Amino acid sequence: MSNNPSFVLQGIENVSFEERPIPTIKDDEVLVEVKKTGICGSDVHYLVHGRIGDFIVEKPMVLGHESAGVVSKVGAKVKHLKAGDRVAMEPGATCRVCDACKHGRYELCPDIVFAATPPYDGTLARYYPIPGDLCYKLPDHLTLEDGAMMEPLSVGVHSVANIGGLRAGQNVVVFGAGPVGLLCMAVAKALGAARVIAVDIVQSRLDFAKNYAASDVYLPPSFNKGETKIQYSERNAKTMREQLGITERGLGSIDLVIDASGAEVSIQTGVFIAKHGGTFVQVGMGAPEITFPITTMLVKEIDFKGSFRYGPGDYALSVSLVSQGRIDLKPLITHRFSFDQAVEAFATNRAGKSADGKGVIKAIISGPDVSVDDL
Amino acid sequence: MSNNPSFVLQGIENVSFEERPIPTIKDDEVLVEVKKTGICGSDVHYLVHGRIGDFIVEKPMVLGHESAGVVSKVGAKVKHLKAGDRVAMEPGATCRVCDACKHGRYELCPDIVFAATPPYDGTLARYYPIPGDLCYKLPDHLTLEDGAMMEPLSVGVHSVANIGGLRAGQNVVVFGAGPVGLLCMAVAKALGAARVIAVDIVQSRLDFAKNYAASDVYLPPSFNKGETKIQYSERNAKTMREQLGITERGLGSIDLVIDASGAEVSIQTGVFIAKHGGTFVQVGMGAPEITFPITTMLVKEIDFKGSFRYGPGDYALSVSLVSQGRIDLKPLITHRFSFDQAVEAFATNRAGKSADGKGVIKAIISGPDVSVDDL
Amino acid sequence: MSNNPSFVLQGIENVSFEERPIPTIKDDEVLVEVKKTGICGSDVHYLVHGRIGDFIVEKPMVLGHESAGVVSKVGAKVKHLKAGDRVAMEPGATCRVCDACKHGRYELCPDIVFAATPPYDGTLARYYPIPGDLCYKLPDHLTLEDGAMMEPLSVGVHSVANIGGLRAGQNVVVFGAGPVGLLCMAVAKALGAARVIAVDIVQSRLDFAKNYAASDVYLPPSFNKGETKIQYSERNAKTMREQLGITERGLGSIDLVIDASGAEVSIQTGVFIAKHGGTFVQVGMGAPEITFPITTMLVKEIDFKGSFRYGPGDYALSVSLVSQGRIDLKPLITHRFSFDQAVEAFATNRAGKSADGKGVIKAIISGPDVSVDDL
Amino acid sequence: MSNNPSFVLQGIENVSFEERPIPTIKDDEVLVEVKKTGICGSDVHYLVHGRIGDFIVEKPMVLGHESAGVVSKVGAKVKHLKAGDRVAMEPGATCRVCDACKHGRYELCPDIVFAATPPYDGTLARYYPIPGDLCYKLPDHLTLEDGAMMEPLSVGVHSVANIGGLRAGQNVVVFGAGPVGLLCMAVAKALGAARVIAVDIVQSRLDFAKNYAASDVYLPPSFNKGETKIQYSERNAKTMREQLGITERGLGSIDLVIDASGAEVSIQTGVFIAKHGGTFVQVGMGAPEITFPITTMLVKEIDFKGSFRYGPGDYALSVSLVSQGRIDLKPLITHRFSFDQAVEAFATNRAGKSADGKGVIKAIISGPDVSVDDL
Ligand SMILES: NC(=O)c1ccc[n+]([C@@H]2O[C@H](COP(=O)([O-])OP(=O)(O)OC[C@H]3O[C@@H](n4cnc5c(N)ncnc54)[C@H](O)[C@@H]3O)[C@@H](O)[C@H]2O)c1
Ligand SMILES: NC(=O)c1ccc[n+]([C@@H]2O[C@H](COP(=O)([O-])OP(=O)(O)OC[C@H]3O[C@@H](n4cnc5c(N)ncnc54)[C@H](O)[C@@H]3O)[C@@H](O)[C@H]2O)c1
Ligand SMILES: NC(=O)c1ccc[n+]([C@@H]2O[C@H](COP(=O)([O-])OP(=O)(O)OC[C@H]3O[C@@H](n4cnc5c(N)ncnc54)[C@H](O)[C@@H]3O)[C@@H](O)[C@H]2O)c1
Ligand SMILES: NC(=O)c1ccc[n+]([C@@H]2O[C@H](COP(=O)([O-])OP(=O)(O)OC[C@H]3O[C@@H](n4cnc5c(N)ncnc54)[C@H](O)[C@@H]3O)[C@@H](O)[C@H]2O)c1
Ligand SMILES: [Zn+2]
Ligand SMILES: [Zn+2]
Ligand SMILES: [Zn+2]
Ligand SMILES: [Zn+2]
Repeated sequence: MSNNPSFVLQGIENVSFEERPIPTIKDDEVLVEVKKTGICGSDVHYLVHGRIGDFIVEKPMVLGHESAGVVSKVGAKVKHLKAGDRVAMEPGATCRVCDACKHGRYELCPDIVFAATPPYDGTLARYYPIPGDLCYKLPDHLTLEDGAMMEPLSVGVHSVANIGGLRAGQNVVVFGAGPVGLLCMAVAKALGAARVIAVDIVQSRLDFAKNYAASDVYLPPSFNKGETKIQYSERNAKTMREQLGITERGLGSIDLVIDASGAEVSIQTGVFIAKHGGTFVQVGMGAPEITFPITTMLVKEIDFKGSFRYGPGDYALSVSLVSQGRIDLKPLITHRFSFDQAVEAFATNRAGKSADGKGVIKAIISGPDVSVDDL
Repeated sequence: MSNNPSFVLQGIENVSFEERPIPTIKDDEVLVEVKKTGICGSDVHYLVHGRIGDFIVEKPMVLGHESAGVVSKVGAKVKHLKAGDRVAMEPGATCRVCDACKHGRYELCPDIVFAATPPYDGTLARYYPIPGDLCYKLPDHLTLEDGAMMEPLSVGVHSVANIGGLRAGQNVVVFGAGPVGLLCMAVAKALGAARVIAVDIVQSRLDFAKNYAASDVYLPPSFNKGETKIQYSERNAKTMREQLGITERGLGSIDLVIDASGAEVSIQTGVFIAKHGGTFVQVGMGAPEITFPITTMLVKEIDFKGSFRYGPGDYALSVSLVSQGRIDLKPLITHRFSFDQAVEAFATNRAGKSADGKGVIKAIISGPDVSVDDL
Repeated sequence: MSNNPSFVLQGIENVSFEERPIPTIKDDEVLVEVKKTGICGSDVHYLVHGRIGDFIVEKPMVLGHESAGVVSKVGAKVKHLKAGDRVAMEPGATCRVCDACKHGRYELCPDIVFAATPPYDGTLARYYPIPGDLCYKLPDHLTLEDGAMMEPLSVGVHSVANIGGLRAGQNVVVFGAGPVGLLCMAVAKALGAARVIAVDIVQSRLDFAKNYAASDVYLPPSFNKGETKIQYSERNAKTMREQLGITERGLGSIDLVIDASGAEVSIQTGVFIAKHGGTFVQVGMGAPEITFPITTMLVKEIDFKGSFRYGPGDYALSVSLVSQGRIDLKPLITHRFSFDQAVEAFATNRAGKSADGKGVIKAIISGPDVSVDDL
Repeated sequence: MSNNPSFVLQGIENVSFEERPIPTIKDDEVLVEVKKTGICGSDVHYLVHGRIGDFIVEKPMVLGHESAGVVSKVGAKVKHLKAGDRVAMEPGATCRVCDACKHGRYELCPDIVFAATPPYDGTLARYYPIPGDLCYKLPDHLTLEDGAMMEPLSVGVHSVANIGGLRAGQNVVVFGAGPVGLLCMAVAKALGAARVIAVDIVQSRLDFAKNYAASDVYLPPSFNKGETKIQYSERNAKTMREQLGITERGLGSIDLVIDASGAEVSIQTGVFIAKHGGTFVQVGMGAPEITFPITTMLVKEIDFKGSFRYGPGDYALSVSLVSQGRIDLKPLITHRFSFDQAVEAFATNRAGKSADGKGVIKAIISGPDVSVDDL
């Protein structure tokens, strides 16, 4: 039997719609009818480059992993869900047996089956089979689009709340005001940060951030002639301190830096701007190697941590924060496409704006036969 | 009155003996007759370069900060000490009022008065005034040389036990088998590390490490022609994994990396060799900036931390570990000099070995009129 | 010279106004003109019983410790304050030298000089000398009454944020809706708690809590005949679970219990209602010993912690949360008295309500010659 | 087919040998031929009372859960084991899906299948089926008896290293010198505790402790006439402080208390003897409710924690500590029985000593057809 239209990456710059068999599910799984899927930078990256690091697309792969849907079928062992439930879908199924899984850090599981990471199919299809415990029931007042947005929000929750350990009253700087950075800001604000400073090199993104969740914004200067990156970054931090009244220690200082830009100079500036004893969380993925001011980091005893995807509790906290009204995901959704328009959706995302000039923060593709207006 | 011979750095490559006034003490201080002082790389650095980073020797400064002695006079408010007590001396007096001091991280105090860090005088003199709570009474079975060695040991304790948070059963790699690295290994072993792997480019240092506190040693290969540092480091980590049977995750993997070499390739190799979810503590101070494999660090969610000097509890734990016999400091003392031989002591330290070819690990200078044989 | 009217506890049930000399200050202190002081249960307790535990009033003692005022004189070493600054005053000056102080837990300092804890005078006077770093400048939009309220708020911050380590999204139960319990609720809400459940045996206090910071309220049943306290508490927890839809584990369960009632049955109920792996913070001080369900606590691996006063960072976070508008202190101030009316103020506090029947949450006494209307 | 002799609890005081079918295994399981099994207090408790708390023996149940054996058959998905491997067996198989399991605290899994906890069969049989990841390969220099002892050792590791978070250099008091208390002491010593003080009311157990892992021992006094338990406990703590030179704070004070006695007065004494800011871990299970000095606990900000069985990493650390020679399990095995002598083994355990008067610490029953001399 087959009635499972899917949006498939065949190879670099080569996508197509395919009819795939309806997946069968195991006892601990449910089958979800996917209703809303956000496009992520990584989806686009696979389309353009056919790989991310060591993950190489070697056979056709369904795209998409930021999804929400409606439960269609429930495995025998799944007790907390029933057909018809609206759910956010956490897209990484882990082994549950390895050291990482057993120690509460399943984001590091080597055997994770992650949607739309080769060789595993993604969620841009009518149906997606998923372990029941990775489905989070959406409260009635949340939309399925909210549900799809739980994925990037969980990246923010993981980095800010879990890895970064943000405490209320702290001052936070977030480099990069793309969807991930914006959601980091939203989490910081929701958790009681005193200041949330957005840094981006694109003014319109700063404007968005200021309206959304940042208390302050900062536009870095351009490079001086002959300046090294480190020299630039030291100057950048100094300018930032002056413009925003940031101190090196104590109440006015920066407790937590989040890099969600991946830019080398952001990371350097972040080390210079963080307080002595502060924390720095790296979320952005840019160049594999950068020039890093290690002595400054040592003398300040900065705690510099990597944040990868999301782990135990992150999705649940995402749903909770949105459900409580502490985070509003709706302003981030700038573009909507039907399933048939998936190619156009990807093109718009790559362009960074639609034909009308409107900048993309997040574009959502509806499931097969789902109206874009049915949120 | 004056009877306080002191060994003073007058400027670059310029030292002399001076008679200085006997220091007066405040109510919360004691006056210590300094008996034993170890030479540290930083003392030599000031002698050769006149500065370390932003700390510049602008007026004559007594050298030395790794010291132990005998209490000579006790301030009115000091209750736990009396004249005649043998004490290890923690050489950084902090403000006790700033945020760092009040939050239990006094190593980050901006107003620290640190011995032999400009503009503050060090301990290579007959007398040194010091807050009473920074004097740690030595148990009878410990020598004054042990007392002096508590300073570098506390660097090891701070990085391994406190910042690194080593847990028993973990596997540790220490890059650099100089005095600091060796003491990091000793601490790791004392705290129950399963494996303590020493890495150095000097075979004799590895031999020393193996006899001292390392369970395994590793000598990195030389560079291949045309290889970048990152390529070298990836190869180095691979070779190391193979030679030593190190796995990427689980029981055979590296939980904690300590860099006590300051070498760029050590830091890179450390990131490649650490397990997913592992911790990396930077102790070594080399080039101010290095090329850093940031994406690897992110994807592995490595916790990369700077360790600076020592903080609350570190000196006390050092004394406890040595007193319990879990760490033996004596093998590290390779050279002894009288106060009059201070110039020769520094020369030997710079050369890295004495005229007889014996390599220096730690050289100790006795106080004025103290015999080198009186340990 | 003397112009320092003071409200002095002479002995049990015996207070009087006295002219005291104006205090002199040390270099690291400031002299504050006290403007607003809240009455605390402990002030009343000293008045009625002349002691709390081992703290016995053996000589006349000025009452009051929840205060804010205006800086009148500044010691030579104090840099961040100047005469005229409006400040909240942290009333415990610690030794800065003991293990507790140096490890970042100064609330445990054995040598603390705490206002209105025998033998130390309190703040109900015109002038109070205080270390400069214990004065927290009030932002312009905060009142001096807000400043006085920072003291009980810091008790809430310490227990919920610091000792309890509340994370956003957690469910919290607070037993006791007096000023301390209410402020615990306010902190929990400000930090992103998903549910804040208030429990009290007085309906009016629950009504207040619901309007203030609780998401849910619960009124415990009365005792059944012959029921032991433990039996009652088990039934109480069961009823509570049913009425409020609380689960034993997972998302619907109680992550954090705060007891701010001191009642034995609250503590027992708290252990029964907490989730497996949950945290319980004891703030309320009632009977010195209680019957405690230890096996339940063990099997659930509950983390049961005492919370005493406040430590590093708590006052600063209190000011930050109020300043950001995340906590509103004004509704808690139910009664205001001039300095001359101090006796009446204490009487009203003891009675729990004023002549007009209005229940007391917090009564504030203005400083000498300060109008009650000048907030 | 059936060749699986099993030692079965039929009901209170009623055991028998039964032939049971050889268990089949799932893909992620292995079948272990059980070679050595220690008798635990809980096995005896089920035999005598037919229940522990809410766990009631309602149908025949194989006893035993402290076991090691040899792998006989390996499920398709198990990669790290092969037939013939000697393994320690962790006897609790958890669900891997619940909140506790996913957050790294599987000891709190509500769906745990624990050997010899009703309704689940234990290990006193020829064969036991067990998930592969719960089998820990024994190094060649460890015996199968060592392997069986990993179970009680893991209780000690969990409480001291994991829940108690012992740091090197700390002073520890352990109440109760039975097998569990002794192993807590061994862990504390292995992890670098400065002092390990054993408390027991039986002198012979203290003697054993002193020879085994305690640095000091303490025998509590008898009750005075008319003394309440709390009064006794306060006096007990005072006497203990005097006899052993224990201080209330600082270096000479007690950082960590472990109760492995379950006795009410031990728990009370533990609260009185712990330092301000200390940690108390409850391991012993005695009366379900006790009188608890809550105000003392609050004012000292003691962190009082329950420790239940063992969680992620505990078994691995147990094997590591024994394998490194930091803990010696052999002295604890005082009695050995063949499988046929299981009834006598239980009788001896209940009596607390064998006919020759030798006190039991740990009695081991060999598997069917395994010689007691084959360790
Ligand atoms: N760690 C993870 O698990 C994880 C998950 C998802 C995304 N990511 C990474 O997070 C980053 C952000 O993702 P996104 O979807 O928001 O991307 P995005 O490209 O939309 O946003 C990046 C933002 O950074 C800004 N930027 C670029 N250079 C800058 C500089 N020098 N200073 C300040 N800002 C600068 C850009 O203008 C842009 O607004 C990406 O690198 C992505 O790969 C990581
Ligand atoms: N963080 C702190 O508070 C602190 C305190 C004291 C010292 N330090 C630093 O710690 C470091 C070690 O101090 P030390 O006194 O032991 O110095 P050292 O020079 O005696 O030891 C450094 C060792 O590193 C080895 N090494 C060099 N390059 C290497 C490489 N590529 N791979 C492996 N090993 C390599 C050297 O052979 C040498 O044995 C120095 O950088 C020093 O500045 C830091
Ligand atoms: N730990 C500390 O540092 C610290 C500091 C200040 C106050 N306290 C203590 O905190 C507690 C609260 O202080 P407060 O000023 O709010 O006191 P309060 O007396 O105004 O409030 C106590 C509340 O508990 C309620 N209560 C009594 N029995 C109850 C029960 N069985 N169940 C539920 N609620 C019950 C009362 O009705 C009252 O509303 C007191 O015990 C006080 O001693 C502790
Ligand atoms: N938390 C867990 O997961 C777990 C696991 C296993 C065992 N346990 C419990 O640990 C405890 C110890 O187990 P065991 O097998 O060693 O038991 P055991 O009975 O052999 O040892 C208890 C010891 O406590 C001593 N004792 C009794 N009263 C005392 C007092 N007032 N002061 C000091 N010592 C006193 C006894 O003399 C005995 O030596 C038991 O309560 C058991 O139920 C708990
Ligand atoms: Zn896994
Ligand atoms: Zn300071
Ligand atoms: Zn103190
Ligand atoms: Zn589970």
